[in-house]
This record gives sequence, C-alpha cells and structure tokens, in this order.
Amino acid sequence: MKVTVWNENRHEKKNPKVSEIYPEGIHGQLASFLEKAGFETGTATLDEPEHGLTDEVLNETDVLVWWGHLAHDEVTEEIADKVKQRVLDGMGLVVLHSAHFSKVFKKLMGTGCDLKWREADEKERLWVADPTHPITEGIGEYIELEKEEMYGEHFDIPAPDELIFISWFEGGEVFRSGATFKRGRGKIFYFRPGHETYPTYHNEEIQKVITNGVKWAANTATPTPVRGNHQPLENITSKA
Amino acid sequence: MKVTVWNENRHEKKNPKVSEIYPEGIHGQLASFLEKAGFETGTATLDEPEHGLTDEVLNETDVLVWWGHLAHDEVTEEIADKVKQRVLDGMGLVVLHSAHFSKVFKKLMGTGCDLKWREADEKERLWVADPTHPITEGIGEYIELEKEEMYGEHFDIPAPDELIFISWFEGGEVFRSGATFKRGRGKIFYFRPGHETYPTYHNEEIQKVITNGVKWAANTATPTPVRGNHQPLENITSKA
Amino acid sequence: MKVTVWNENRHEKKNPKVSEIYPEGIHGQLASFLEKAGFETGTATLDEPEHGLTDEVLNETDVLVWWGHLAHDEVTEEIADKVKQRVLDGMGLVVLHSAHFSKVFKKLMGTGCDLKWREADEKERLWVADPTHPITEGIGEYIELEKEEMYGEHFDIPAPDELIFISWFEGGEVFRSGATFKRGRGKIFYFRPGHETYPTYHNEEIQKVITNGVKWAANTATPTPVRGNHQPLENITSKA
Amino acid sequence: MKVTVWNENRHEKKNPKVSEIYPEGIHGQLASFLEKAGFETGTATLDEPEHGLTDEVLNETDVLVWWGHLAHDEVTEEIADKVKQRVLDGMGLVVLHSAHFSKVFKKLMGTGCDLKWREADEKERLWVADPTHPITEGIGEYIELEKEEMYGEHFDIPAPDELIFISWFEGGEVFRSGATFKRGRGKIFYFRPGHETYPTYHNEEIQKVITNGVKWAANTATPTPVRGNHQPLENITSKA
Repeated sequence: MKVTVWNENRHEKKNPKVSEIYPEGIHGQLASFLEKAGFETGTATLDEPEHGLTDEVLNETDVLVWWGHLAHDEVTEEIADKVKQRVLDGMGLVVLHSAHFSKVFKKLMGTGCDLKWREADEKERLWVADPTHPITEGIGEYIELEKEEMYGEHFDIPAPDELIFISWFEGGEVFRSGATFKRGRGKIFYFRPGHETYPTYHNEEIQKVITNGVKWAANTATPTPVRGNHQPLENITSKA
Repeated sequence: MKVTVWNENRHEKKNPKVSEIYPEGIHGQLASFLEKAGFETGTATLDEPEHGLTDEVLNETDVLVWWGHLAHDEVTEEIADKVKQRVLDGMGLVVLHSAHFSKVFKKLMGTGCDLKWREADEKERLWVADPTHPITEGIGEYIELEKEEMYGEHFDIPAPDELIFISWFEGGEVFRSGATFKRGRGKIFYFRPGHETYPTYHNEEIQKVITNGVKWAANTATPTPVRGNHQPLENITSKA
Repeated sequence: MKVTVWNENRHEKKNPKVSEIYPEGIHGQLASFLEKAGFETGTATLDEPEHGLTDEVLNETDVLVWWGHLAHDEVTEEIADKVKQRVLDGMGLVVLHSAHFSKVFKKLMGTGCDLKWREADEKERLWVADPTHPITEGIGEYIELEKEEMYGEHFDIPAPDELIFISWFEGGEVFRSGATFKRGRGKIFYFRPGHETYPTYHNEEIQKVITNGVKWAANTATPTPVRGNHQPLENITSKA
Repeated sequence: MKVTVWNENRHEKKNPKVSEIYPEGIHGQLASFLEKAGFETGTATLDEPEHGLTDEVLNETDVLVWWGHLAHDEVTEEIADKVKQRVLDGMGLVVLHSAHFSKVFKKLMGTGCDLKWREADEKERLWVADPTHPITEGIGEYIELEKEEMYGEHFDIPAPDELIFISWFEGGEVFRSGATFKRGRGKIFYFRPGHETYPTYHNEEIQKVITNGVKWAANTATPTPVRGNHQPLENITSKA
C-alpha cells in the first residue's frame, strides 16, 4: 500500500517556530510515522513541478494525506481537479486541520467548509463519538491536547457519513473534529488537529488516529461502476 | 413563499413531441401546478439575460426548481456559482430528472453525478423507502409510471441524508430516485422522473411529490452561522 | 394537532426545590407553553390508571412528550410496548433529558442509552450543528444555560438520522444533545436539557426548541406500508 | 478471529429439499466457506443446550452469523438478550435472510422489521449502491440469483448507517438487501439472500459478500466507553 503525504511546506520556510518543531517539514513528520507503521510512503509539496502530484504519482497512490493553509490558492485548478477525480476513482484521502479550506476538500464537499477559529494556546479534548470505528483503534475515550488552535461550529460541511470525534475547547466551543465521507469509489477522513506551531503530530495518539485513518481510507478492490447508456437486462414487454 | 421554476427550455423548441405534451414548456407545466398549490411562482429560462436568474430573482426565491438536459454547459459558471451560494445561504433547491448532471447539482454534490440510462418506453415503479417523510404525504406505497426513461445505479452521488424513493425498472435496474441533501443552510431534494417525451409532470402523484418537496425545501428562519475569527466565550486559563 | 405531555411526576412530590420551580409539575410547565404555541395539549402521569396512557389517549395523540427519571422501572412493559407501537404507527415522540433511560426510548433505540452524568451546577452551551433544521427555527447559534446537569459522551445511541445540537460543558465534556431518529412511520426527537432542579423549561429558547420539535415530529399523512405476503405486480416469466 | 455460525436447523430436518441442498445444514455450509476463508469457525444450533450459545462460546466469538426462520419464538428471551448485549459490547453480527425477524435483530433495531415477501421462484438482482464499501470487495456491479424468495419494501428498519445493496425483483419490487448498522461497540450487517429451498449459499459471490461482511463486522480494539457518574476534567468556576 502506497501513501503520499502532500504539504504546502510554507510555514516551515517562514517561521522558525514551525521548522523547529518539524525540522523535516510537516510532511516529513507525517511520512516518518506512516513509514514506521508499515506503509510505503512518499511526499509531495507545493513548489515541486505539478505540486509533486504527477499522473504517475497520483495513479500509484492508494491514500493521499493533505496538509495546507497559507497557499490554498496557489494549488492550480487543474491539479485540484485531478486529485478530486482520483478520489472519485478510488484513492483514499486524509484531510488534516487547515486543509478543510483546501480546493480539493471544498470541491469534494460542495460546501463552503468554513468554521470559527482562534489561536489562543488553549486546551482541546477530542471525545470518541463512534466506538465501533476502526479509526479509533488503540486509543482511549478521548485525546487531550494541551495547546491547540480552536475550530468551532458551525463547520460548513455536509452531514458526515460517520462522526468519529467531537472536540471540546477551553474557550467554550465544540467541533466535529473527526469525520468520514464517501465520494464516488473514494473514502475521505477529515481530522482536525495539527496547527503548525504546536507539536501535535509528535503526539502518539494523534499519530495512531492518522495511521488508522490511512488504513481505513484505502480502497479494497471494490466494484468499478459502469455508467452511461445501458442495454436492458430483461425483456421490456411494454415496448411491444 | 416564492418559488422560481428554472428550465433550459430547449427540447420544447426543437421537438414537437415535447411541445405537444408541454405547450407552455416544462417550466410552464411545473409552475402551473405549483401555483395551484398556493405558492407564488415565477419562471426563468436559459435564454433570458442571466438565464433569468438575476440577483433580484435569486434573492427573493425561497425554493428554486431546476430542469435541464441538453444545455448544461451553456449555463455560465458565474450563474451556477451564484445559485450554489444561494443554496448554501438557505434557498431550497428541487432538482428534477436530467438536472442530475446540471452544474449546480454537481457543484453541490462534489461527485460526478453520472448514472446508467436508457430510453425504451419502459415501466418505472417508485417505492417509498421512508414512510415518515413529509415529501411522501398523500401518496400511496408506490407510484407507477407506464413509460419513462430508465436511470440505473450506481448513481454517483454522496450517500443521501434521506432516501425517500427507490425505483424499479422493467429492464432490470434500480435507482435511488428520491433523495435529500443538506448543504450549508440549504435543503436539496432530487427527484428522478420527468423525461421530456413523456407526460410525467401531468401525473398527479408526481405533482404531489414535487409540491411536497418544494414545501419541505423551504428554510424556516433557522440560525445564520457566524464563521471566522472568534473571541473566547470562557476564560482560557492555560494561556496565563 | 393533539399533544400529550407525559411525566412521571415524582420529583415534584418529594423535592420542594422542584415543586417550587414547577408548581404545576414538569408536565404542567411543558403543557403550558405548548398550549400557548397553539397545540391542543393534555397531560398524563405515572400514577394515573394505565399511566394516563389509555388506548383512547394514545390513539388521539399526534405527538407525545416524555419526561421520566426516578421511576422508569415502574412503567409497565405493556404500556411501554404500546407506546412504542404507536410511534412505529406514526405518533411523534419528543424525549426529554433523563428520559434517555426510559423503557420507551430504549426499546426504540435498541441500545443501552447510557451516558456520563454529573450534577455540579455547571454551564452548558448547546451549539447548533444543523442550521437547516426546522427544529432550530428562531434561535441563535447556540443556547446557553447557566446551570445544568452534565451529560457526556459516549451516549449509547445509534448514530442519529440528524444531529442538531452538540453541548459543551464547563467540566470538559461534550454531548450530542439534540438528535432525531425515524422508526417505522414515527419521528423521534431527543433533547437533552431539563434537570428537575433547574428552571430550564422556563427558558424561552428551550421552549422554542421543544415547540419546534413537537411540530416537526407530527406525521403528515404519509403512506402506511402494507407488509406480509404479496402478489407479484409483474409477470414472473421464470416461473413458467 | 473466531466466528460462530448460528442456525435454527429446523427446515433441514423437515424438508428433504433443504437437506438435499444443505446436507450439513445451512450452518454447515456457511461454516464451511468461512473456514476456508481463514476464520476459526464453529457452529451452534437451536436445539443444543442454551441454543449452543453459552457464555463461553459468546465471549470467545468475534463475529456471530445468524440464520433463523421457523422458530424465532423458541429462542429464549434470556439468550436473545445475552446476544444483544454481546453485540453492544463489541461482537460483530451478520444477520441473514429471514433472520430479519429474529428476536436478536428486532431488539437491536427497535422496529418491527417486517417486509413484503413471496415465494415464486423469481429472479433477484442485487445492485451495489456503495462501491466504496469493503463488503463489496471482489464482486461485480451486481449479483444475479436465478431463483429466490422475494422481499419487498417497505422494510421496517431504521435508516441504515450504510446502504450497500438494493435488490430488483422480477415481480416488480425493490429491497434494501445489504445494510449496516452500528449499535454500542458492535457492528451489524444484514444481508437478504438465502431462502432455504434455493442453493444460494453455494453461490460464490454470495459467499464472498458474507465473508467480507464477517471481516468488516469484527471489532478492532476500539475504545470501551465508561459511563455513569463522572468527575469533572476541568474546574467548574460557576460552582464557587
């Protein structure tokens, strides 16, 4: 199984606080623990040709992990449409934190994907809302993060197919912070945590959830629908 | 409550069979029974300036009904985006038959919206799958249409919020033919029947369902979410 | 439209704090604002014959509102089964607060319906998670209650058909506090607030939500499914 | 992973047609292909002490497969309640064909679970409605069964969490024939085909779906929620 981690990789270049936490970039850190979990893992970043997402890379990717924030607009329409199409064709997608506003996620959701936000070094507690879900494997009833950015409702997404985590924030808000969506033959997992100035992706429970999410999002040889004009499978007697 | 019926109005101009069934156009027929049902109803068509969907019209419309087929591509991106935004802001949308492939519906779904199809004068039977739903008010367990176009699965839509009708077709296929979706503050009802060469919109049960759908899709003064940067509602002690 | 408010009416008799807040009983207070909202409203309580829920009362009730806590076990299996059957047959049901553990709700959900709880005079903030829903009509983005009992996840219910409110609690928990479920021809709305020692049902926003919930839960002449042995609607050629 | 196949095993004893198709019983046939698929598989039948479902057996079972029809009423309330509780505690459950009317399924659904039915040697075609789902792995767009019993809508179940198959029947009906439900920590898959007088469980595609269903239904060490009285995780300032 082949995983590609995509990152815009801009905060890392501008903000020493971020590059101190993630010396190999956010993508480097994500790829590192996914590699250890046993996936064949590559990375791709915004400033590479075609944002690192050539047809070859996309066609070989089973699950794409996406982190972006500052530069959503610099992702070309063409690449965003190509990624969307690959998801509809069966590639898994794990959308992290501020990638809620990425072109790819917005195109797949069909909604504005906006939310409330605040940077105030506050506590987040992610409660498990679906204790049947394989994405929650190996963690406890909740995950606590001492300092995170706040995201608050109303989160402008379609009602998720599955709601897995609900976050509590110290400042008084809640958020649907782990949610799945199916689109075409593709499975999508949105997971909220991961503001660039906090060491969230060093947290082992967060790593476990993302690893579980990647595993869940991979398509397992399900049928490929045929569409368009279709000959009848039965006699149409009324036609006579 | 103000309803606008939009129609591309092209089959009616080209195909005498269609203009015979719908001398006032498909939009005329839809508007006629919606008006009788007590809604203040207007129409808009593709060839009018701004496709008849000026800001004024859109802003005053509570529920928009959409029929299109031949000319989806002639709807400008700008108008399609404007309609989508109005839905997210709370306008109801009833999407009929071949409008599954309209720009507006595809943008709101985020999927390909393709399906199987066939024109073979065959029987369709729409079974009620959700007998709690106000959209099924006043009809029986199923609706039978002697001759309709076939639409078959897999219909490339997100899993609907509510599945209301499932169609049986004589040629051997099934279809999720009545389904609701919520996007932003807007409610969307997709309803399958209505091929232009059959008198489907003269069928009283079909009229009842569309009327119910319009009533259901209207927003009833629900809250308008505020998004963006947000001050804490509680003291954030960890910040000190 | 006929509404019946059911209450076990026990706290009111034992605890002067409760009878001070609700001199007419919790049922009296609920009935009072529902009556003002225009519904024909009656009440029924545990200690009446058949708990006040005779066949006549049940058959004439469009929507039943249920509050219970201390005495769930005193409701007879027979009455609980009868109420469940009426819901499946189309009666609406609004389940309030500690009625999450009522026999009727548990039988309809099929799950344990347990949760975390705490009485600590703490703040609850109910955030709107579905700003399309008529149950949220006329309120703001959230409702704040200065003092309420805490209910926390994991709430052992099936994934709701619609998630309308998510609560934030001062002590660090979250809860799916407004949720809808469809069962048979019946619509069910669970709404969390209403601990007996707080004046929650005097809060006008809470009253508005319950009123909206009653309105939403009423069945509107939807089809009555026929089940059992069924003659074919088409020729079965393979039989020959 | 340990699978237990439960069967009432009555048709096999009464009807030579059934015992000819399933000389080892329906349970024997199901166990045979599940064993080949790599699961450690046992069987249990109605007439064994405790219906073969002792605490020991249940506690060691990861996924229980259930087939019943004639003798639902002979399953004791105690065993049915025990099985239900094990599902809520995390045991997977695959419910086949006429087990839609089993005590266990009805208790878990909270609805009547009735449907239309007919035995007329007619054709069934199961269309894939969710081509992302691992339960559809390895099959085509549809499965065709030359002769099966008909089950028709309205099927009195809660709206499934996932709708995987929709059946077309020759006689004119449709049915939600593959559906998943989550209850507590347990995952449930209902799959329609398998009338006792047809060789349905010898069909390799049907075997593949049931095998996939068993794999999907197994819980993977997800969190065990704690419920009941709960100490605050944060200071409750309003209490002072």
